[in-house]
Amino acid sequence: MNSGKKSHPKKENKKFLEGFLDGVIMDVTSGEQAKIAEDAGAVSVMALYQVPADIRKEKAVARTAPVKKIEEIINTVKIPVMAKARIGHYAEAKILEEIGVDFIDESEVLTPADSYHIDKTQFKTPFVCGARNLGEALRRINEGAVMIRTKGEAGTGDVKEAVIHMRKIRQGIAELVGLYELGEFYGDQGVENMGHKILEKAKEYGVPEKLIQEIGKLKKLPVLNYAAGGIATPADAVYMMVLGSDGVFVGSGIFKSKDPEKRAKAIVDSVKNWKNSKVLMEASKPLAAGMKGTAIDSLKEEDKTQYR
Amino acid sequence: MNSGKKSHPKKENKKFLEGFLDGVIMDVTSGEQAKIAEDAGAVSVMALYQVPADIRKEKAVARTAPVKKIEEIINTVKIPVMAKARIGHYAEAKILEEIGVDFIDESEVLTPADSYHIDKTQFKTPFVCGARNLGEALRRINEGAVMIRTKGEAGTGDVKEAVIHMRKIRQGIAELVGLYELGEFYGDQGVENMGHKILEKAKEYGVPEKLIQEIGKLKKLPVLNYAAGGIATPADAVYMMVLGSDGVFVGSGIFKSKDPEKRAKAIVDSVKNWKNSKVLMEASKPLAAGMKGTAIDSLKEEDKTQYR
Repeated sequence: MNSGKKSHPKKENKKFLEGFLDGVIMDVTSGEQAKIAEDAGAVSVMALYQVPADIRKEKAVARTAPVKKIEEIINTVKIPVMAKARIGHYAEAKILEEIGVDFIDESEVLTPADSYHIDKTQFKTPFVCGARNLGEALRRINEGAVMIRTKGEAGTGDVKEAVIHMRKIRQGIAELVGLYELGEFYGDQGVENMGHKILEKAKEYGVPEKLIQEIGKLKKLPVLNYAAGGIATPADAVYMMVLGSDGVFVGSGIFKSKDPEKRAKAIVDSVKNWKNSKVLMEASKPLAAGMKGTAIDSLKEEDKTQYR
Repeated sequence: MNSGKKSHPKKENKKFLEGFLDGVIMDVTSGEQAKIAEDAGAVSVMALYQVPADIRKEKAVARTAPVKKIEEIINTVKIPVMAKARIGHYAEAKILEEIGVDFIDESEVLTPADSYHIDKTQFKTPFVCGARNLGEALRRINEGAVMIRTKGEAGTGDVKEAVIHMRKIRQGIAELVGLYELGEFYGDQGVENMGHKILEKAKEYGVPEKLIQEIGKLKKLPVLNYAAGGIATPADAVYMMVLGSDGVFVGSGIFKSKDPEKRAKAIVDSVKNWKNSKVLMEASKPLAAGMKGTAIDSLKEEDKTQYR
């Protein structure tokens, strides 16, 4: 057993992030679960004290996982290990950086600790953050996040909110692409107010104009965009890929099901080959019904994810 | 056993308060708990009949602790002993002064007894009071409090409200500093209405203009400003220090956890070295998950702290 401290990839290490394309990241609460995730081909694991379905049930204060729990997981697997800090909780994130996790998830799945987000530029460890629309995604990127995931409705096993969030992000991007392309098209001849429109969007989203222009030019986020929150089956995962995700986080869906090993493998295979429906069908074949879950539309308003 | 009566520091005894800088004050309900707090390095203990988590659960009338309970605690430890009186309850505070406690906390954690606060200038014993924003803090200071703490949401183990209260106090101070600095900057040339702005703020907060000017000049409160209400982990404590606290009160967080001795020590060490993330991580390492707690956003409105 080493100290648990290992060097984490630098934010600028694009190669590390390229390995995440068409990948699956799984929530785990023990070394044993982390091993199952690694063996199934997960590109990374998220070290947690409880899976979101249990957090949701308890309504207790959900905090970053105990140091020993995270170290147990780091010491069990070779793939990168992520861990969650509460929204805004600078000191929890500093603990995670000291432990040497590879990625910090500033996550609404834990109990939010502040109405401001962490200034992620103060950290060497890269951050992933949740978003429900393009504005949230861009604010988090502007604060230093190098990866974005949809918030969805974690712990429900209902993919609906994740779908809505991904659609909103894509629609927001489409709007900026349109503004950028029209600006390019008219060029010197000038289109009245085109510059003003970019500025308006920058104001609306609360980010620099430069970032708005970058999105219009790139036609996608400048960072990886995963899906998360309610993904429970290989089909859910593939659906999110079709909607434009670069990969998926699966939380309670795997270890709250009756067949975690098979399900983990099936989701990895399906995401890796997301354009191939035959692979999806074959991967789904050995599986029992997915986690029971809770339909989002049956939730009381106060039981939905905070920071909505 | 002596009578429990001992001399308490005078309000003017700044040296006594200097010992509180970067310190931790712990809620205790017995001599045994007080000893654990003292051994862990607490700068003071708060003698209570019940910790806030139990007060919150019971919804009974929470009063100052029984005299014998407070004397038991005074007779067990050498560090200063604080005790709580209900908001406005002059006679409970007089009992505490007669017992010889070192500090009286006029506290919203107990059931408020009045819509006016105690005139603290009528006491020799120094007072600490809660505040949710700069206005509350300044009114309490004007009434004679020599120490301010955030109210937070005691007994929940959720730090979010304490964070919001500390941010509001700091933002309020920033505003007064701005007014003062601009006044100084323009000096004799005069800026119309600058004096009026100071007067407006004095009226808004219900305190003398002189106090408003003092804050602008000092750039901080003229008294110690601790954080309290929902701090349950070393990371919570350090986060409050990063936000500008001079120290922290920890209530239910310690004796409602599974590892009070270790946790008390870990919080003291982390606060003393709050700029050092490595100390925070190492101190957190031996700890189990924190007190279960209750997420503030899951509370019904009527279950939130009174005098909000």
